[in-house]
Amino acid sequence: MQKPRNDIPTPSVRRLSLYLRELESLQNEEYDTIASGQLAEILGLTAAQVRKDLTYLGQFGRTGVGYEIPTLVKRLRKTLGADKTSKTLIVGVGNIGRAIATYSGFIDKQFELVALFDSDPKKIGKKIGRKADAISILPLKRLKPTIQKHKIRMAILTVPANDAQDVADRLIKAGIRGILNFAPIHIEAPDNVKIRSLDVATELEQLNFMTASR
Amino acid sequence: MQKPRNDIPTPSVRRLSLYLRELESLQNEEYDTIASGQLAEILGLTAAQVRKDLTYLGQFGRTGVGYEIPTLVKRLRKTLGADKTSKTLIVGVGNIGRAIATYSGFIDKQFELVALFDSDPKKIGKKIGRKADAISILPLKRLKPTIQKHKIRMAILTVPANDAQDVADRLIKAGIRGILNFAPIHIEAPDNVKIRSLDVATELEQLNFMTASR
Repeated sequence: MQKPRNDIPTPSVRRLSLYLRELESLQNEEYDTIASGQLAEILGLTAAQVRKDLTYLGQFGRTGVGYEIPTLVKRLRKTLGADKTSKTLIVGVGNIGRAIATYSGFIDKQFELVALFDSDPKKIGKKIGRKADAISILPLKRLKPTIQKHKIRMAILTVPANDAQDVADRLIKAGIRGILNFAPIHIEAPDNVKIRSLDVATELEQLNFMTASR
Repeated sequence: MQKPRNDIPTPSVRRLSLYLRELESLQNEEYDTIASGQLAEILGLTAAQVRKDLTYLGQFGRTGVGYEIPTLVKRLRKTLGADKTSKTLIVGVGNIGRAIATYSGFIDKQFELVALFDSDPKKIGKKIGRKADAISILPLKRLKPTIQKHKIRMAILTVPANDAQDVADRLIKAGIRGILNFAPIHIEAPDNVKIRSLDVATELEQLNFMTASR
């Protein structure tokens, strides 16, 4: 099996993800082919940008009418590593953690939620999710054995800001290589660990700034 | 009152938001001053980058020991427009919408959640949030009058992907200028409307790619 490439620039990876999402939805609507210009128009990009990004997928037999959507979807999945299931866990089962755990997109997609953790003794043992797929909340002392047993590489961090760095340190020590952080703080991590932060307050601040009347 | 500036490049605005978050937390821990090098180190940036970004705040009387944190916080808030309360609303009261509505950071910060909307008749009239601050869920036909009455400029969109574009169109027609979109699709909008999209699946896909073993 072809390994995912790591040498694609981050902005291109981000756009490849968007192409995949868009093409999957076009595929569901039973479209067959698409021209780079059409995909560009849907996503507000230039056709040249789309064509350049798609060169990261390797050589294509392009027809006169554009790219075959099923081929493109398959190549994108392979390149992004989205053709394999990846295991992940959530630490912090508050409102956001619970929402992500029960997010319907989760189980259908390429990410398998293996475990939930919380530091609140009252939450330990409770189950989250639909009956057959429900997952029990574990105490933090079970982090390391769970990560090692299931070889989990990615974690979703939805703990309060004050606890986020401590928990991140524990995750990294236990072998986690990528953290999706929802706490409104900057997480320190070694170079071989990737952190992506999503913070609703910061995002709203950006939007507020960008839409302020001059 | 000084209006927020619109001429700061987006990456700098994003970093100014991060500086504000970090400095507010240092202020809570009762730090007084900070050097650009220290702030840079905390956030994994270069001191030159931090100094350049801070020039957007105007002239500073710098002391030998660095910037005074309270002054910096005040200037950042003013520049970002974070010194005024901004009104916002949420459309789609599913798991994510509910989590954001009850997000404790919400009411303490500069954003006031004015209204919640959903298309499900069973949800209309239900209340979300703590007793005194609880907000009723309204039907979508109340979108336009509510936006116009309260002069709301920003909306949080947490509806299913299939409904996201339609609802966004209605929001924009009613006067919304900025949308924070949680649906995993690209939202089309005129140039004078800003869209920011947060999608957990896409973020995980990036992380998964970036941390794939070579």
